[in-house]
This record gives sequence, C-alpha cells and structure tokens, in this order.
Amino acid sequence: MRTYIDCYPCFLRQAISAARYAESNDMQLHTIIKEVLAVLQAQSNGVSPPEIGAIVHRVVREAVGVVDPYRNEKKKATEKALNIYPRLKGIMREHHDLETAIRISIAGNIIDLGVSSAYDDLWTTVQRVLHQPFAINDLGKFQKQLACAARLFFIGDNAGETVFDRALIESLPVPVTYVVKGSPVLNDATREDALDAGLDQCATIISNGSDAPGTVLSLCSGEFRELFESAGLILAKGQGNYETLSDAGTHVFCMLQVKCPVISKDIGVPTGSIVIRQSTNKC
Amino acid sequence: MRTYIDCYPCFLRQAISAARYAESNDMQLHTIIKEVLAVLQAQSNGVSPPEIGAIVHRVVREAVGVVDPYRNEKKKATEKALNIYPRLKGIMREHHDLETAIRISIAGNIIDLGVSSAYDDLWTTVQRVLHQPFAINDLGKFQKQLACAARLFFIGDNAGETVFDRALIESLPVPVTYVVKGSPVLNDATREDALDAGLDQCATIISNGSDAPGTVLSLCSGEFRELFESAGLILAKGQGNYETLSDAGTHVFCMLQVKCPVISKDIGVPTGSIVIRQSTNKC
Repeated sequence: MRTYIDCYPCFLRQAISAARYAESNDMQLHTIIKEVLAVLQAQSNGVSPPEIGAIVHRVVREAVGVVDPYRNEKKKATEKALNIYPRLKGIMREHHDLETAIRISIAGNIIDLGVSSAYDDLWTTVQRVLHQPFAINDLGKFQKQLACAARLFFIGDNAGETVFDRALIESLPVPVTYVVKGSPVLNDATREDALDAGLDQCATIISNGSDAPGTVLSLCSGEFRELFESAGLILAKGQGNYETLSDAGTHVFCMLQVKCPVISKDIGVPTGSIVIRQSTNKC
Repeated sequence: MRTYIDCYPCFLRQAISAARYAESNDMQLHTIIKEVLAVLQAQSNGVSPPEIGAIVHRVVREAVGVVDPYRNEKKKATEKALNIYPRLKGIMREHHDLETAIRISIAGNIIDLGVSSAYDDLWTTVQRVLHQPFAINDLGKFQKQLACAARLFFIGDNAGETVFDRALIESLPVPVTYVVKGSPVLNDATREDALDAGLDQCATIISNGSDAPGTVLSLCSGEFRELFESAGLILAKGQGNYETLSDAGTHVFCMLQVKCPVISKDIGVPTGSIVIRQSTNKC
C-alpha cells in the first residue's frame, strides 16, 4: 500500500508520541519535529507507510538516545495479555476450531500504540471479536492452504498481541516459524517480547532483521528474505503488515483489526472491522 | 499562546482538509503537503498558532486557486443557524439576562471546521451550553465593565456562529462594533458571512484586514489596530482569538468552547468546557 496524504499528520503524531514515551525534553521534541518534517519532505510517492515510519521512529530514538522507547508499555501489554491467557486457552478448550483461534489472535491486534496510546480492555475486545462478523473473510482459503502446508510462517505484530498469537499457534496442526522485528520500533514485538509471551514454547522465533513497523522486504536481512521467499504459507498480523504485504501473493494472508481511516479506505471496509484477507499477486 | 508541538500534526490535517474543501486534485494535494511541511520547518518558537495557520491556509488557497474553500460550508452553517435563530430569540424573550445571551453566543462556537469537519447538532448544543457550568467564569467582571462601556468591540469567529453572536448583541444595552476577517481563512466569518447572518442590523461591521484565523495584531490593518487599541471593552470569540488575545489586557474577555487538547492544556480546563475568561496583561 502506498502512503496516503492522510498518513503525514499521523507520522508527526507518532513521532511526538514516541518522543514522549522516551521521556524527551522540550528541546529534543523540537529537534525531533524539525527532523521529521525534513524526512517527510524528502519522501517520494509510492513508498509504503512502514518505510517512512522506520525512518521517523529512528529519528526519535537517536535524538533521545533511547533504544526502545516503548519497552515499558510493551512489558505492560504482555503482562495484561498473559493475565487473560488462561481464559483464552479455556475458550480454545471449549471450541477447538480454527475460526475461534483466528478470532482470538485478531482480538489481540487491538494493542496498537501506533494508532492510539490507549486501547480497549482486552477481555471486552475478545468477547466482541469472537462474535463480530468478518468484513473480509478468506478463512476458507486459508484453511485449505493450511491443510497442505508443512509449516506456517507467522509474521507477528505487536508485543502483548504475541500472547493471543500464542493461543492460536498452540492450536495449529503444523509447526510454526514466528517472525519478530530485528530491533525495536513502536510497540512491535522483538525477540525479547516474543520470549516474554512464551512463544518459544510453541514456535521457532526468527528476526526479520529490520526496524520498520511492517515487513519491508528490501529492508529485511538477506537470511529473512530467503526464508520468506521459500515459505509455502504466510500469515501476517496487523496494519503494518497489511500495508507492506497486501499484494505479496496468494499464499499470504493478512489478518487485522482495521483501526485507521486510511487502511479502511484502502482495504474497503469500515474502521472497527475484523479481516482475514488473502493477498493479491503484484500486478 | 505559543504554538505547541501538538499543533504541528493539526496544521497538516487542516491543510489536507482545506485542500479537500477546495476540491484539489491529487497532484495539488501533494504540492500542498510539501509546501506546508516547508512552512512548518521554517517556523521559529514563540509564534502563535494563527500566525502559522494564516500561512498554511494561504498555501492551500494559492495552490488550488480558490479564494474561499469554505464558502459553501459557511453558507450551510449560516443557514442552519438562521433556522434556529427564532428559537434563540424565544429563549432571550423568556430570560432576557446577560448570562443566557452569553451562553447562546458560546453555544455557536461549536461550529469550528478548524477542529473537525463535523460538529454537533446546533440545537442540542444550545441546550447543553444553557445548563453547563462555566469552567472559567469571569462573567461578573465582564458585566461590571460592560455597565461602564460606551461601546463593545466584539471580535467574531466563525460563519454560522455569527447568528448566535447576533442574538447576544441584540440583547446588549450598548452599541457594538463587530469585527470580521479581512479575507477568507478556514470557516472564519468575513464581511459577507456577517451580512448573511444579518449582523448589519445590530452592529457596525468592520474588517481586521487580515487572513489569520485569530487576531494577530501585527498582521491586521493599521486602521483596525488603532480601533483595537482605543477600544474600552473587547469580547473575543473562539479558540483562534484565545490563542492570540489571552494576554491582551484586562479589558479583553475571551469566550469559547474548549475543543482541542492543546487549548485545554494551555487554559487549564478539560476539552468540552465553556469559558468566559478575562485576559491577562502581557508580562
């Protein structure tokens, strides 16, 4: 997905928010805003939001000298999610079907500090997403491909959401490779966050080698790109991965909660929707 | 009031919104956003938001070649307000006290396309503001000064809101000079909008000679500045005037609905508050 004009105010808002999470002082905030304005000015059309987001968040981290501004928030989100993890497992014991597990994982996508610093109560969200109709539902196609897959390549999104992904992964009949960011950006999960969620107990955790808040293949490590390109079936979580993988081929499925008006317009369903969508081939 | 860091995303949002009201095409939108980013980069600390807003909105008007992007929206707002004007007069006949008239005028401040392109139903807002406690209430001080004033200098804000101001002005015991913008910016009232609201029937309408969405004295005409400086009592409506006149002296009163988190922080009351506040002297 290309960057829309309406993403520009949002990059500024995210930079300010990240700077505050990093406890920057007023002078640092001013430096950051001026640098981010320069970054935005230098962008050419056609790049995806996570490509710009990667630079914007790097500007903040470097200006404030903090490696992971969202570390505390990510810890808190993972703890909150682990608190309801036994209840998520309870739901899975009751239903043990793929759709319920997918819904649980999508519920976790409510934790998204790129969109807003506050998010709905996790258990309330689970109850909503368990019953909400899919606005785009390619679950049948995913299920068919899963039945033939030797392994699932699962591209994670945010810390805390990782716990919901774990509940899904533990219900799957195939081995799973769980992909995290190479280094911190926003509240996206890194290896450390995945370990905090216990994902090492059910999946092989690998890094994509990049600090973009999505999967920008040109910014990922060569090792990751090779694995990505040979993967038979890929499940990618959240808006950042939709923004970068929505046309990555029919073996890629994006699942997310639509939380911003730009994604809503691009994907063609209202804000608040839940989606599991088969990606298209690049035209 | 100085421009806060959080105003920057808002300038971009306003530029995009204004460009859309002016029916700009995609290429114009891109030109506008790049120019506005350059404008924001060039700003030094300490200027007020309306000083930057004036340049931002000028960039949009010039790029699209439209003199008044908000013309239709302003017409619609004035018509909506004129539709409930008889009911506003009805309230005044029932109560005929200054506080009710002030509350009616403040209710009209809900029409603010700088904050959001949608605003609450006007009549619902009137009913809310008639009963809502003031978060800052310098009405007593205003009333005292009004009793001694030979004339009230009334600095208007938005089109449509003008009709609510008319209801207030028609209840006042002193002659009124009503100040409008020199040329269009945002949905701020110009002479044309004031005439559409019938303000010529109860006040002397004068222009401030500027296109800033507030009262930036250095950008106003010399003629206006002279009148402003000799005015004994000034009532200034809305956020833009608060941003530029909150320290213009104790003979200036700002009245507004607090509609954005930055103003809320600066003035020290929650978003959604209603306020009549005596300005301070410049320190």
